Amino acid sequence: MTIRYYDLAGADDEHRFSPYCWRIKLALAHKGLAAESIPWRFTDKDAIAFSGQGKVPVLVDGETVLFDSWEIACYLEDAYPHSPSLFGGDAGQALALFIKHWAEQVLQPGIFPMVVKDIFDRVHPRDRDYFRRSREERLGRSLEEVQADREARLPAFRQSLEPLRSTLQVQPFLGGAHPHFADYIVFGIFQWARCVSPLQLLEQTDLVWAWRERLLDLFDGLARRAPGCGP
Amino acid sequence: MTIRYYDLAGADDEHRFSPYCWRIKLALAHKGLAAESIPWRFTDKDAIAFSGQGKVPVLVDGETVLFDSWEIACYLEDAYPHSPSLFGGDAGQALALFIKHWAEQVLQPGIFPMVVKDIFDRVHPRDRDYFRRSREERLGRSLEEVQADREARLPAFRQSLEPLRSTLQVQPFLGGAHPHFADYIVFGIFQWARCVSPLQLLEQTDLVWAWRERLLDLFDGLARRAPGCGP
Repeated sequence: MTIRYYDLAGADDEHRFSPYCWRIKLALAHKGLAAESIPWRFTDKDAIAFSGQGKVPVLVDGETVLFDSWEIACYLEDAYPHSPSLFGGDAGQALALFIKHWAEQVLQPGIFPMVVKDIFDRVHPRDRDYFRRSREERLGRSLEEVQADREARLPAFRQSLEPLRSTLQVQPFLGGAHPHFADYIVFGIFQWARCVSPLQLLEQTDLVWAWRERLLDLFDGLARRAPGCGP
Repeated sequence: MTIRYYDLAGADDEHRFSPYCWRIKLALAHKGLAAESIPWRFTDKDAIAFSGQGKVPVLVDGETVLFDSWEIACYLEDAYPHSPSLFGGDAGQALALFIKHWAEQVLQPGIFPMVVKDIFDRVHPRDRDYFRRSREERLGRSLEEVQADREARLPAFRQSLEPLRSTLQVQPFLGGAHPHFADYIVFGIFQWARCVSPLQLLEQTDLVWAWRERLLDLFDGLARRAPGCGP
């Protein structure tokens, strides 16, 4: 039975931009697992109520129902031990958790205000009220105001990537010679931005740009070919 | 032949506070390797000139001479493969490099201005001119001025530990169930502060405090027993 997962979609079904779902798309490809993705919108809470909560990705593998991208990756690693490893052992899994938290607490909040109005423009019309209300409540300002000064935020954002940049100075991936789930976590956030915004977050001379290019090339260009994304 | 390493010492030989040397002390204990440490001061450049550079740790194992704490850890891992692993495999080693850069680019610069005058008070009298001159040049202000507003820096510093804190919410060490060289890298920086300053960087209710306690207990309290350190 094919694995199925619910994946955030925008105005049209083909346009997928959730950073958490990108992690799982790449993890499934890494494991060589065929999977069917089901487009989902923020306001389709009923469609995933069977998972016991309201966020994607939700993954269904036979009788198993899972949510939370980290839990899903851990499940795929354990359930498909003969496919290429996502973590490279217990230590690789444990350390990836630090990188996940860095990505979610430093990288993602760094990008969010620079693309939040662009996300709004991409979400499905029926999600727009929900998206604007929930995000403006969190930000305390209108989406337009928050995004307006994004050029001024770029230098500090690029500076915040320094631990990533220094690591990529000696190895092609965070995971070393081969991509690791930690790479997919961090890349998923860049892919989220790429899929909604024309803003060039990275200079093309940046080692992080070159690493992003390598990730875009993986699995026959899975992420590069994603419909509706920028360069 | 016993491994020897040069270790930064303060006014008296027993007082050792280099964060880079603490990584190696813990790595040697982790590997169960006996080693003789040689006290060294910032201005003893001649004593380690045989290593081709001027910083500690420098490690001598038979014919092998190494500097740079990361290179030394990688050497110990390869040269003593039957001792407990510092990295837990290639992925664990690769991801630890990201944590090293985070520790050196976020954690260490966060602590440095809060303890820099305390370090000055601890360095050997013959190192004081060198230390003050080189650090004030880097900081652009006197050591006293830089350290004066340290209480005001504490909230932002503690906030910067959030990726560490979140990780330690689900596992006792960065490396998971067992300490990893990544733990020693991060801990070495806290131990550096502990060995020079009475400033309480962490609240005792902080998960990072509890993790630091676990590290202080390792190897029969190797780090806790270090002479001249605070609580």
